[in-house]
Amino acid sequence: MTVDTETRADPGAATLPPLRVRFDAIRARTIALVDGLSAEDLVAQSMPDASPAKWHLAHTTWFFDALVLGTRGQPRVRPEWGVLLNSYYDALGAKHPRPERGLLTRPSLAEVLAYRRDVDAAMREALRGELDSARLELVELGLQHEQQHQELIVTDLLHLFSRNPLGPALRASPAPASRETPLEWIEHADEGVAEIGAGEHGFAFDNERPRHRVWLSPFALASRPVTNAEFLAFVEADDYRDPQWWLSDGFARATEENWRMPLYWRRDERGGVEQFGVAGWRALDPNAPAVHLSYYEADAYARFVGARLPTEFEWEAIAQSHPPLGGDVWEWTSSAYSPYPGFRPFAGIAAEYNGKFMSGQMVLRGGSWATPRDHIRTSYRNFFPPHARWQFSGLRLARTLGRDRA
Amino acid sequence: MTVDTETRADPGAATLPPLRVRFDAIRARTIALVDGLSAEDLVAQSMPDASPAKWHLAHTTWFFDALVLGTRGQPRVRPEWGVLLNSYYDALGAKHPRPERGLLTRPSLAEVLAYRRDVDAAMREALRGELDSARLELVELGLQHEQQHQELIVTDLLHLFSRNPLGPALRASPAPASRETPLEWIEHADEGVAEIGAGEHGFAFDNERPRHRVWLSPFALASRPVTNAEFLAFVEADDYRDPQWWLSDGFARATEENWRMPLYWRRDERGGVEQFGVAGWRALDPNAPAVHLSYYEADAYARFVGARLPTEFEWEAIAQSHPPLGGDVWEWTSSAYSPYPGFRPFAGIAAEYNGKFMSGQMVLRGGSWATPRDHIRTSYRNFFPPHARWQFSGLRLARTLGRDRA
Amino acid sequence: MTVDTETRADPGAATLPPLRVRFDAIRARTIALVDGLSAEDLVAQSMPDASPAKWHLAHTTWFFDALVLGTRGQPRVRPEWGVLLNSYYDALGAKHPRPERGLLTRPSLAEVLAYRRDVDAAMREALRGELDSARLELVELGLQHEQQHQELIVTDLLHLFSRNPLGPALRASPAPASRETPLEWIEHADEGVAEIGAGEHGFAFDNERPRHRVWLSPFALASRPVTNAEFLAFVEADDYRDPQWWLSDGFARATEENWRMPLYWRRDERGGVEQFGVAGWRALDPNAPAVHLSYYEADAYARFVGARLPTEFEWEAIAQSHPPLGGDVWEWTSSAYSPYPGFRPFAGIAAEYNGKFMSGQMVLRGGSWATPRDHIRTSYRNFFPPHARWQFSGLRLARTLGRDRA
Amino acid sequence: MTVDTETRADPGAATLPPLRVRFDAIRARTIALVDGLSAEDLVAQSMPDASPAKWHLAHTTWFFDALVLGTRGQPRVRPEWGVLLNSYYDALGAKHPRPERGLLTRPSLAEVLAYRRDVDAAMREALRGELDSARLELVELGLQHEQQHQELIVTDLLHLFSRNPLGPALRASPAPASRETPLEWIEHADEGVAEIGAGEHGFAFDNERPRHRVWLSPFALASRPVTNAEFLAFVEADDYRDPQWWLSDGFARATEENWRMPLYWRRDERGGVEQFGVAGWRALDPNAPAVHLSYYEADAYARFVGARLPTEFEWEAIAQSHPPLGGDVWEWTSSAYSPYPGFRPFAGIAAEYNGKFMSGQMVLRGGSWATPRDHIRTSYRNFFPPHARWQFSGLRLARTLGRDRA
Repeated sequence: MTVDTETRADPGAATLPPLRVRFDAIRARTIALVDGLSAEDLVAQSMPDASPAKWHLAHTTWFFDALVLGTRGQPRVRPEWGVLLNSYYDALGAKHPRPERGLLTRPSLAEVLAYRRDVDAAMREALRGELDSARLELVELGLQHEQQHQELIVTDLLHLFSRNPLGPALRASPAPASRETPLEWIEHADEGVAEIGAGEHGFAFDNERPRHRVWLSPFALASRPVTNAEFLAFVEADDYRDPQWWLSDGFARATEENWRMPLYWRRDERGGVEQFGVAGWRALDPNAPAVHLSYYEADAYARFVGARLPTEFEWEAIAQSHPPLGGDVWEWTSSAYSPYPGFRPFAGIAAEYNGKFMSGQMVLRGGSWATPRDHIRTSYRNFFPPHARWQFSGLRLARTLGRDRA
Repeated sequence: MTVDTETRADPGAATLPPLRVRFDAIRARTIALVDGLSAEDLVAQSMPDASPAKWHLAHTTWFFDALVLGTRGQPRVRPEWGVLLNSYYDALGAKHPRPERGLLTRPSLAEVLAYRRDVDAAMREALRGELDSARLELVELGLQHEQQHQELIVTDLLHLFSRNPLGPALRASPAPASRETPLEWIEHADEGVAEIGAGEHGFAFDNERPRHRVWLSPFALASRPVTNAEFLAFVEADDYRDPQWWLSDGFARATEENWRMPLYWRRDERGGVEQFGVAGWRALDPNAPAVHLSYYEADAYARFVGARLPTEFEWEAIAQSHPPLGGDVWEWTSSAYSPYPGFRPFAGIAAEYNGKFMSGQMVLRGGSWATPRDHIRTSYRNFFPPHARWQFSGLRLARTLGRDRA
Repeated sequence: MTVDTETRADPGAATLPPLRVRFDAIRARTIALVDGLSAEDLVAQSMPDASPAKWHLAHTTWFFDALVLGTRGQPRVRPEWGVLLNSYYDALGAKHPRPERGLLTRPSLAEVLAYRRDVDAAMREALRGELDSARLELVELGLQHEQQHQELIVTDLLHLFSRNPLGPALRASPAPASRETPLEWIEHADEGVAEIGAGEHGFAFDNERPRHRVWLSPFALASRPVTNAEFLAFVEADDYRDPQWWLSDGFARATEENWRMPLYWRRDERGGVEQFGVAGWRALDPNAPAVHLSYYEADAYARFVGARLPTEFEWEAIAQSHPPLGGDVWEWTSSAYSPYPGFRPFAGIAAEYNGKFMSGQMVLRGGSWATPRDHIRTSYRNFFPPHARWQFSGLRLARTLGRDRA
Repeated sequence: MTVDTETRADPGAATLPPLRVRFDAIRARTIALVDGLSAEDLVAQSMPDASPAKWHLAHTTWFFDALVLGTRGQPRVRPEWGVLLNSYYDALGAKHPRPERGLLTRPSLAEVLAYRRDVDAAMREALRGELDSARLELVELGLQHEQQHQELIVTDLLHLFSRNPLGPALRASPAPASRETPLEWIEHADEGVAEIGAGEHGFAFDNERPRHRVWLSPFALASRPVTNAEFLAFVEADDYRDPQWWLSDGFARATEENWRMPLYWRRDERGGVEQFGVAGWRALDPNAPAVHLSYYEADAYARFVGARLPTEFEWEAIAQSHPPLGGDVWEWTSSAYSPYPGFRPFAGIAAEYNGKFMSGQMVLRGGSWATPRDHIRTSYRNFFPPHARWQFSGLRLARTLGRDRA
């Protein structure tokens, strides 16, 4: 990974602004995300998988404080908060239990915002010249990390608000209604080798590398994600209760937790369907992508319509020649989250960033409306456990070509 | 139960001020309890057994809104909050799940405080004359109810703060150190009948009635609760791990949850003991009453010193002639929480107040420093499950007299 | 406790045969209980609360081996089985985990039966004269203990068989149908003192002593237990789902475990009710006592019909003058299982027999058809947690007399 | 899949005997596995993941009864046992809950053995000519299925016996001690395409098909599995507690369940290590393959020695040219259990055999000493969840060649 503090040329991507400018812009965007919300909204944690927004604000700051400004991963600006804000880095010492992040009424929101200002000032000073290349790489990693948390701030707040019977809105205005788009199939008719993963230049997470070859059999990929109207047919057929479409683990989970429709859907009084989103409860938009699906639901739906999920390699191979493939909704793939051949974790202090999670999770590709635009990459590998539903996760169908296979 | 809105004469108690004056005083004291705390502090819930302070503020207000001002238990001033604030009254409709009270970032603290003001205004208007005697009794019940929640606000905030590694203090100044008091035994040497429970006049909860007779064998009761220094001997002997002192359920719980000392105790760096309290972590006061004990620990300690817990009847019989018996710490008794002979639940809307909890709980008598002074009664029956530790619960020893019994 | 190896005169009871004769008779009856069942039937454990019948056969034998024949509680005849067969005596060393008793395919049934023969031979030898009075008391305790396990063998096998879709029968012939008996009320109209508990002579468990006085208010007790036909009215009214009758803990349990009727009841194809019993699935006998009820169900039913459960003292006071009060079904009382005033556990090795379980359990009185006739005593206190349903547990109604109380 | 009832030629494998001969041989071998064990041993279930041996005996018989002899999957010979013996086929009707298989003391072992004889007779009759090709394929599937259960009978009995403090042996004589074998590396130095999966002829499970191409980067595979002596170094270094080697899920599981060494290892009195096996507790054989490892432990160990697990494709590519690669121990691969490109489940009644389990499991390759020799195939894909330890599962190391990658 090489980082240029002035100009970064990512081959195959638009030129990025200098690191200092990006630092300010990304840090400011995080704050903008919680604009209009109260300290109460930001302290609460709705489930162990989600974190309070205040914690996200503090943790993303700790990342710079501990990994860039600090020594051996110990924060320099607020050393006494290290235990509270270390998420999962075993090498960096003790960690406050994740399910108890919502108990941290102290430090207060005001103190966390002051922390952000203090670290931003120290970082600007540092970015004026003192940082060696290893630290500069950690700055870039910290910004990418903060962009990941920007999406999590939205998903976690949405989950919190969804559990409130008052159904509060995160934002006043809803998304404009989508227009219907016909489904087409993008064919990859020839068997052969594809190059997968990020090249050597430009930023990428360690899990996107090394670039390597995979063999692809003929297949076709849908031109757009599955929509709410399409998924509704599965719901209306009561196929949440028909085991023939489901993975065994998925049917067990759906039964145990009494799933009947996607997370954040509910029947309205006339039998229609409402969906909870950033603007609160609204009538389901039939043309918008189906979202808040677990892998199990996505996989079952694909089987229900005689298709399947794509592998992450199929997805990436198509995306290389169809650049705007993602950006509406994260798309579950049928690929378990595994290391690429020759995978090496980030060196040093960030070694735990990705590798240790390569078990029990599935890869999602693309990116959602909540993903920062400059955080979307063709080689990007998002991952969640197959039962996770609170992310902006949907699906795109695939089919095997040749013979008479699904 | 009879209620006089001007003057209430409780036989055996000091004359109470008029109901209107008490209403204002009690409502104001609740607010005073959270003075200096932030909206963040008040929204968080540290465990399913505890509630956020903001919820306590709102729920105590809902009680007046729904049961006094409203019709058939539906709140008049904020009807849309009924589901959120109903604690456990099945007859009054749906209830937000108790473990999710900490997710209610809305209504905001400001909105809840406005709710208190609105209900207070409506109540003052109502207290000027429109209330029938049934409603007047519900006003009195509402005040007693609010006093119960005043103590819970302290216990629940203390639990929340105890889980924060920063160890914040609820209040700046700690309690003054206690002085050593010798232990004496108050003897009740004659076998015979005692009158137990509240008489017909004055306020009492339904569970304190009817006054009835019990037969007491000779016994003696300690003149004061067990102190920290005394309980420390049990800890230092590592008798949390010796099953001979423990009830079977208690030993199972202590093993499973790895109890080694009372809740809120910890070793300091030199092997001494610190205790978490309203002033944060402080050196253990040897002469203060041992507190935050479960029934299991209290019972085991009593057996360890060759004594036993008193029954609630023994306790009350002594307290009738030793008025200041309680007020430092709630004292576990060996009595399971059961109805008195001839028990009748409150009539009407408050029928669920006490009776349905008469299973799986033990009676505590006395009252703690956090109990409002005018809420302490000789006949008062507090109750918690035997494993509960976050209340201000300790113990007083008893002994059987005659023969050579423990 | 005094034991006479030749003749024991229990005041108020029939003269018992000499200890040696009783030893042989009781030991033989245990074996008769499992006559006709296979080794497979006897090894299985259907839930952590129940034990395999083979384990009961071995454990009751271990009691004599360890406490009578052995030294300091270590078995003499099969020392290597001590860990497997110690139920809950912490003072006697390690214990195999209770939920894993069903994994003990070794020792085999044949080996356990040989163990019984070997210990019986050694016991008969010992009973010819070598035993001191403390050991003689332990022989008597061991026989009473074995009689308790005789009933548990039936309840535990019944539970096991009830979980088998084939619905096997423990015995070929069902009980003869009961006849309808009108309900009458036995009045105890005068308030006053009653003497409760076992006197100083004859065998009784430590928890039945000391005999002591209690004060009873006027009440009435039903002349017979509640019948299936009566309880069916509660089921048919769907009152398993109506919280107004239920203790809060009980309703939570009933909801969580989806109770709709007593354990071992099911609808037949025509909407009638069948009950699983020792003869397999049979049409519900309307006049037989309702059985396999938890305390929660018994208590809810009593409230449903405007009555209540009796205290264990009320029950015993009536039973003293109505000797055949029990013997059909164990009857839940409203009394939590607590020590009598002046309670002292058995001395020495049997100290853990009863006392450490005096928490979280309710007292049952009477005795069921599966209780050996000479094991039924007016002062006998059986106890189980309030949610337990697999015992032969039913209820008898009580009412408070005077005033207009329930 | 094509099945020849007389001779089957599996390309790349030895000629198999006619189906009738194999039927008799495989059915007889199952019975031989439980020779010398009692009905008690065969009825018990040690955990939900394991089944009683009697259930295995009956279920493998049901497979032929329901899928070959029956109509639409309903058993012909014992229709009333369908519910008890259906393992996981949702399309075939209701299923007795898996965790309660140990409660099935009926049907008895004798009845199950009679069932086996009756079905065997009916099958032999059927194999004389009446079966169409679809049913013949189900016969072959049933035999392969029974061979899978043969290994499970051993693993499940071993688990059961391991939980018995008496430590009984399944068999009298232990395996002969292994000899030390030096570790060598088999290099696959050229990048390129490999053909993976079973071809069109001969029996294979649906999950082994279709044969397809994958691209392999240069790598090396160890010449033998990791031994006990090698794994012991990881144990002695206390690296079960060092998170740096572990996947996050794995470390959480190891911590929660307090893993300190492989399942079935324990310290002896002199600090050495004993292992529980079919001959009971024995000193650890240093040269035998490490076994009873979870995926998490296998993966952590590989990282500890600077290597990694192979993918299932790497394993198979090497195995194609090194036929005796497996047979000592199942070897965890780094491949999640996923469908091959173009995967199609078995047609008809056996469709649920494999596909619905393709989630949350990892592939193991090779085969253990308990796997029937003619059940071992180069293309064979075994699979278990990453935490499973009770199988005969170990590991073989791999390394990436070229660059300086692990």
